[in-house]
Amino acid sequence: MNYNKPFQKSEYDQRVRNVKLRMEKAGFELLICQDPANMNWLTGFDGWSFYTPQAVLLHLNESTPIWFGRAQDAKSAAITTDISSENIIGFSEPLVHHQSKHPFDELCDLIITRGWGSERIGVELDAHYYTARAHQHLINGLPNAHISDNVELVNWARLVKSDAELVYMREAGRNVTSTMNQAISNLKPGTKQYEIIADVYHSQITGLDGKFGDYTSLCPLIQVGEGTSTPHLTWTDEPIPDNGLIVMELGAARRHYHTPLTRTAHLGKPPEEIIRLAEVIVEGGDTALAAARPGVTCGEVEEIWQNVLKLNGYQKESRVGYSIGLNYPPDWGERTASLRSGDNTVLEAGMCFHFQSGMWLKEFGAAISESFVVTENGGERFCSVNRELIIID
Amino acid sequence: MNYNKPFQKSEYDQRVRNVKLRMEKAGFELLICQDPANMNWLTGFDGWSFYTPQAVLLHLNESTPIWFGRAQDAKSAAITTDISSENIIGFSEPLVHHQSKHPFDELCDLIITRGWGSERIGVELDAHYYTARAHQHLINGLPNAHISDNVELVNWARLVKSDAELVYMREAGRNVTSTMNQAISNLKPGTKQYEIIADVYHSQITGLDGKFGDYTSLCPLIQVGEGTSTPHLTWTDEPIPDNGLIVMELGAARRHYHTPLTRTAHLGKPPEEIIRLAEVIVEGGDTALAAARPGVTCGEVEEIWQNVLKLNGYQKESRVGYSIGLNYPPDWGERTASLRSGDNTVLEAGMCFHFQSGMWLKEFGAAISESFVVTENGGERFCSVNRELIIID
Repeated sequence: MNYNKPFQKSEYDQRVRNVKLRMEKAGFELLICQDPANMNWLTGFDGWSFYTPQAVLLHLNESTPIWFGRAQDAKSAAITTDISSENIIGFSEPLVHHQSKHPFDELCDLIITRGWGSERIGVELDAHYYTARAHQHLINGLPNAHISDNVELVNWARLVKSDAELVYMREAGRNVTSTMNQAISNLKPGTKQYEIIADVYHSQITGLDGKFGDYTSLCPLIQVGEGTSTPHLTWTDEPIPDNGLIVMELGAARRHYHTPLTRTAHLGKPPEEIIRLAEVIVEGGDTALAAARPGVTCGEVEEIWQNVLKLNGYQKESRVGYSIGLNYPPDWGERTASLRSGDNTVLEAGMCFHFQSGMWLKEFGAAISESFVVTENGGERFCSVNRELIIID
Repeated sequence: MNYNKPFQKSEYDQRVRNVKLRMEKAGFELLICQDPANMNWLTGFDGWSFYTPQAVLLHLNESTPIWFGRAQDAKSAAITTDISSENIIGFSEPLVHHQSKHPFDELCDLIITRGWGSERIGVELDAHYYTARAHQHLINGLPNAHISDNVELVNWARLVKSDAELVYMREAGRNVTSTMNQAISNLKPGTKQYEIIADVYHSQITGLDGKFGDYTSLCPLIQVGEGTSTPHLTWTDEPIPDNGLIVMELGAARRHYHTPLTRTAHLGKPPEEIIRLAEVIVEGGDTALAAARPGVTCGEVEEIWQNVLKLNGYQKESRVGYSIGLNYPPDWGERTASLRSGDNTVLEAGMCFHFQSGMWLKEFGAAISESFVVTENGGERFCSVNRELIIID
């Protein structure tokens, strides 16, 4: 079948080698990866099948990964990866949503059959789809194994992006720029929120110049009026008001690589306090991004931002950013480095972050965020939407 | 803030009463619900915040539920639910993606403070976002509690839909009918797969007559040629061929109530074996739906379908359907009743299913599915797209 893989085989081989070195260091012989982003990053496996238990296994002595999942999805693994057929293992259909049995019972059988039943196995204890029940079946089915949290081992390996990955990040960024600018131009009094979002989806998927988009890990978010005081509300059928504040957070995904962006608009003449807050957010972001060079820590970047806030009488409790890249719903964050106090991760060229400078105050909020890659010259933005409070009057 | 809740307060009260009766019967004093569909069903809480730990707590002696989640999302709870402010509890921001601490540490504090630390607590051990790590923090933080799996207690309470819920199911069904018919009319040789999907998204969100759509729990799925032999591949930039098979599975969500639908099309003259397979699928589905009346079991419905297959020399290993209704990504199935051998759930009027009659054979597949509600007259379809192999010549 004609399937255009996003990366060369050599790139996947390099990733597997990288992860194996980390496994040796951490003392794991076998890794069980259920996070769909980790599965994709290691093998290219793609498909909306992450609602059933599935995993990519990586063993120190096995030259290629093993795919384990629902039998009907095994063909997707054959199409989207280079894994040889003997390493693509489908589990029995009756195990789906079974009250006492679980697909991981057969995963345990597989691990024992391969002779790995007494080894040190790293699992993704906090991956979104790695449920407490899945873990129990693994523990019970492998009584001689030493199973422990691998503490986002593969997620950390994803932190610095390769040149090939940055190509997709930049393409996603152009897609977001175009999508956000269109959404802003759609903000007219009387237009229903859902009408704006319908166009956002269309633009996200269409992309630019044939660089189409995948589904994004978060849906497009829009908040209006008092709703701007909280970040994760979704659209309704309320019309855009004549006068009021609007925050939109949108991403786009290019081969599942994401570049989120947030902008704030005001219909009608904005109150002084909103103008001032937006100015501080932009200044804080500009200052912090200029400093986001290799060698600086995540915590230091956040401190620079907080200092700008402090000078202007503000404070933000939540972290001001998190690493981004390849991801699947429900989150485009990588669950590794955060731009916040106490995070001593040292920046390297190629790390990517969403600088989410949103301030959610009691009655309203504003956010003017940026997705960027760390370079020798500071944070390079992926998107190029005007950095300002957008006034629609 | 002007927020249009999907149901009357009396409907939520009724749901909470229903679940409390089930709790008493199952021997739980406290329920911790992390499944976003359960959280929404019990309280109305809505927002794309399910990528961080959050929960709705239900205690037998507490008249209203308690919302627990990230501080920045507490305002969303205030806006979208009737929960009083003292029962909306935000956790401390530094706990987000913390390497050793976890938001559920504070959930444990809350439970102990309320005097429930030694009680019988039911958790959703297999809910998508209830990670093994979250569970460990709960177990460690509540050493005197009796914590066990509530075995989808709330999901089962959702099985029979109220009249008010069926209104949304029917609206979603009309939305899917319109979306699928448009997608079919877009199937022209040379059109890129992503162009078709961009229009699907636009239609899903726009809805009909102001009945807009929410994001769907699965993304739109499209498979072409050999790709039809597996169900969960997503779109690419390949053009629709002059000659070949296409399967599309689409949903729509009305206030998060879903009605999925699958159709199969052939560009050019279809091979005899595909025509025959499609005919058998339609006949099997029609026969099974006609029998889907109150009193019949899920297993019996599946047997009727299998008999039609058997008479025609086919067999389907995977289940032929599952209960649907309110849901959030990554799945629109409710993880309760399945139309499959051995499922003795007795059908009642108001139960809703996706009859997924997809047959994924070695080299190709076909699916002509239906979403339906059980009535005295058999399964009533929510959508009305022609039930046939669609031939585009």
